[in-house]
Amino acid sequence: MAEKKQVEQITSMEEDFAQWYTDVVKKADLIDYTSVKGCMVFKPAGYAIWELIQKQMDERFKACGVENVYLPMFIPESLLEKEKDHVEGFAPEVAWVTQGGLAPLQERMCVRPTSETLFCDFYKNEVHSYRDLPKVYNQWCSVVRWEKETRPFLRSREFLWQEGHTIHATFEEAEERTVQMLNLYARFCEEILAIPVIKGRKTDKEKFAGAEATYTIEALMHDGKALQSGTSHNFGDGFARAFNIQFTDRDNTLKYPFQTSWGSTTRLIGAIIMVHGDDNGLVLPPKVAPTQVVIVPIRQQQEGVLETAVKIKEELESNGIRVKVDDTEKSPGWKFAEAEMRGIPVRIEIGPKDIEAGKAVLARRDTGEKSECAMADLCDTVKTLLDTIQKDMLDRARERRDRQTYTAATREEFEEIFAEKSGFVKAMWCGDVACENEIKENMAVTSRCIPFEQEKVSDVCVCCGRSAQKLVYWGRAY
Amino acid sequence: MAEKKQVEQITSMEEDFAQWYTDVVKKADLIDYTSVKGCMVFKPAGYAIWELIQKQMDERFKACGVENVYLPMFIPESLLEKEKDHVEGFAPEVAWVTQGGLAPLQERMCVRPTSETLFCDFYKNEVHSYRDLPKVYNQWCSVVRWEKETRPFLRSREFLWQEGHTIHATFEEAEERTVQMLNLYARFCEEILAIPVIKGRKTDKEKFAGAEATYTIEALMHDGKALQSGTSHNFGDGFARAFNIQFTDRDNTLKYPFQTSWGSTTRLIGAIIMVHGDDNGLVLPPKVAPTQVVIVPIRQQQEGVLETAVKIKEELESNGIRVKVDDTEKSPGWKFAEAEMRGIPVRIEIGPKDIEAGKAVLARRDTGEKSECAMADLCDTVKTLLDTIQKDMLDRARERRDRQTYTAATREEFEEIFAEKSGFVKAMWCGDVACENEIKENMAVTSRCIPFEQEKVSDVCVCCGRSAQKLVYWGRAY
Repeated sequence: MAEKKQVEQITSMEEDFAQWYTDVVKKADLIDYTSVKGCMVFKPAGYAIWELIQKQMDERFKACGVENVYLPMFIPESLLEKEKDHVEGFAPEVAWVTQGGLAPLQERMCVRPTSETLFCDFYKNEVHSYRDLPKVYNQWCSVVRWEKETRPFLRSREFLWQEGHTIHATFEEAEERTVQMLNLYARFCEEILAIPVIKGRKTDKEKFAGAEATYTIEALMHDGKALQSGTSHNFGDGFARAFNIQFTDRDNTLKYPFQTSWGSTTRLIGAIIMVHGDDNGLVLPPKVAPTQVVIVPIRQQQEGVLETAVKIKEELESNGIRVKVDDTEKSPGWKFAEAEMRGIPVRIEIGPKDIEAGKAVLARRDTGEKSECAMADLCDTVKTLLDTIQKDMLDRARERRDRQTYTAATREEFEEIFAEKSGFVKAMWCGDVACENEIKENMAVTSRCIPFEQEKVSDVCVCCGRSAQKLVYWGRAY
Repeated sequence: MAEKKQVEQITSMEEDFAQWYTDVVKKADLIDYTSVKGCMVFKPAGYAIWELIQKQMDERFKACGVENVYLPMFIPESLLEKEKDHVEGFAPEVAWVTQGGLAPLQERMCVRPTSETLFCDFYKNEVHSYRDLPKVYNQWCSVVRWEKETRPFLRSREFLWQEGHTIHATFEEAEERTVQMLNLYARFCEEILAIPVIKGRKTDKEKFAGAEATYTIEALMHDGKALQSGTSHNFGDGFARAFNIQFTDRDNTLKYPFQTSWGSTTRLIGAIIMVHGDDNGLVLPPKVAPTQVVIVPIRQQQEGVLETAVKIKEELESNGIRVKVDDTEKSPGWKFAEAEMRGIPVRIEIGPKDIEAGKAVLARRDTGEKSECAMADLCDTVKTLLDTIQKDMLDRARERRDRQTYTAATREEFEEIFAEKSGFVKAMWCGDVACENEIKENMAVTSRCIPFEQEKVSDVCVCCGRSAQKLVYWGRAY
């Protein structure tokens, strides 16, 4: 404990969750602030998490027929304006380029806040016949939205993301792709990030500007607030009509095609921090941990200690595990605390006595549990341990999420829960936006989604008492 | 030949090289033009080449200690202005953002044309002690330069690239890293892109805005024009002084650190096209071919043909080869021509007779050579063939480059060569920028580099006749 204090302490979650979050992103060396207000630097430890997300998500995309492309970062104003709802949704929050080189532009352009309009412009050239359909494209890029309030990973003026944009001959095929990609995101969150999510549809009030239907995955953070973690939109043929994209179908008639888009962002890193982190810092699920195992040599000056550490590293690496040896001159206690702050899933301690006894000490970041392991079994044990940690982290996150999910049948219950607790509240809704507005105004609570898995927790709307249409997940959100 | 005509023909290289290039990028489906002047869409076939370049270059970066980061895309004007030469070089060609959301910005920002100034701003926070050094960072991103004339891959207003930015305690260490990265680029071009390059230093006239020394790799295109294919800059402590970055060294005194940067871009795709392409379209080196083998079934309606094609595909794929079966309803001749246009290194033809005889036909894209192969040996044969093609393509490119490299001892010779031929010309130079200017004005020829491998082809400057300092490679360039 004395040695732990050598590493700068972070605020405890209990005391001030927002400050705890800010401390973790800084002290785990994930980001730095910049001279550009509202924008941040992804430092190596932060960017490496994004690279692991990208790599594993991209593999899943490619396995279901997605092809990557890259479109320009600029959108001419006249293009942005073609779809009415879309321009209303985005125009107030874009950055405008008005000068190129030494001359003013004839038409100003915004830096893409999202690329539906550019993809429409592109598809208009590419799609003429049913033979050209479907196109299932995606791009990894950065986008800009001129937010007033920003927080690292959660909301910044520039952020990194992927945006998929597809175009189909029928509404049904578009709908199928929309749901397929939402399911892909949900499985990705559970299997890779160890984050359980609720899948559902957004209400009309909360849907994407220009979409017919928006589907979402909603995760619950440690403080009981919700985080929208990925969305998938079915545009119907609205954009095709606005951009006059048409194709000749098999029956030789001209038709408007149907489009979808779906995106996930560096927000996911914020979700990892807020779902798994603790008062010692970051806790990374092994599958997105840039370093999965840190080896801390004890009495490293003694002959054979560093050599053994390096030998273990090489053996683990040859088994596909990401390993570092901390051979700096800091004390072991300091190294432990640093590795904990950075969320490295497994720590191996190895000193002269361990070497003599032919064993090593393993410590889990997620539980703090320590165990001994015979040197001969180390590689298999570490592999199994990483799998166990990944699974346990998901289980614990799911248990916590379920504990923080409440049911309200009446308005009193609803208000009481949000006054005293935080989390998801399942309650019925009549379908009227007026009720959503009232709840949002009075309690700063929004509809998170109409879950795919419907239940009936009462007969009437939790707000107005009229006949209920749907179960809705409600919550306070990032 | 009759069937070939079914595929739209491209202009021949001989007839009009520029038009041939434009035809290839369009007909091989690499890019599309957009409503955003000077910007292009990377279509799947084009972007997949970039992904293969990225992946293989990034592995080499990481193997020599490079860490990836991501910095904002915007640079406040005051930041861009801090280094005098740098702002003079870039300010005339940047895009300016002047409005964010509904309000004008207090200070305008440019979209990064390159990120030296942002990295300096970042390093100023990060570097305080010799213990913080070196930092060896890189980012993959897009940058914007407001060019007047644009050409796909070669020069566009937005392009994709990587930019490495490092900071060191000593000049020597910075210089070592500068040269190390140039060597990495050169080996990458030869081993992955099958493009031989000349390594050297840029003259002061041609160096990067703000650099003490710029190193370059220069490749020669099919038409005898040079293409700068990667650069690496040593900044000395110039940027550190301009941004007041200082660190406490081991001797407890404050010092300015030394910086480098190095970049390569989607231009490399242009180089692949112009070094290897022919009158049938693109020719891709196997290591950057998104599809390395296309299997064309002959009489695919007959029982067993498609099944065999798919079986071959699976076997090759399980050996790490990237394969497609073309089972569309086009004729085999059409499929051959299409696969040639797209530059797929190896074609396998398989029909009922082949299946009966237990063999398949292999065709090389680079030479057109056809051979038969017993089905049992197919996998090994294809693997070997891909390696052979990769090696042969480099050898042929080197031979052509060497054939198009001339030596001029006198001004007459120099002018004669550039009047009649095109290629590199090796000639001596006195070191005076006036001679470079004169040659550029009279002949549209520029100094490409002062090669690391110096020779003495005469005693006097090829332009002014004064005493010569250095051998220079001269050429017309993209």
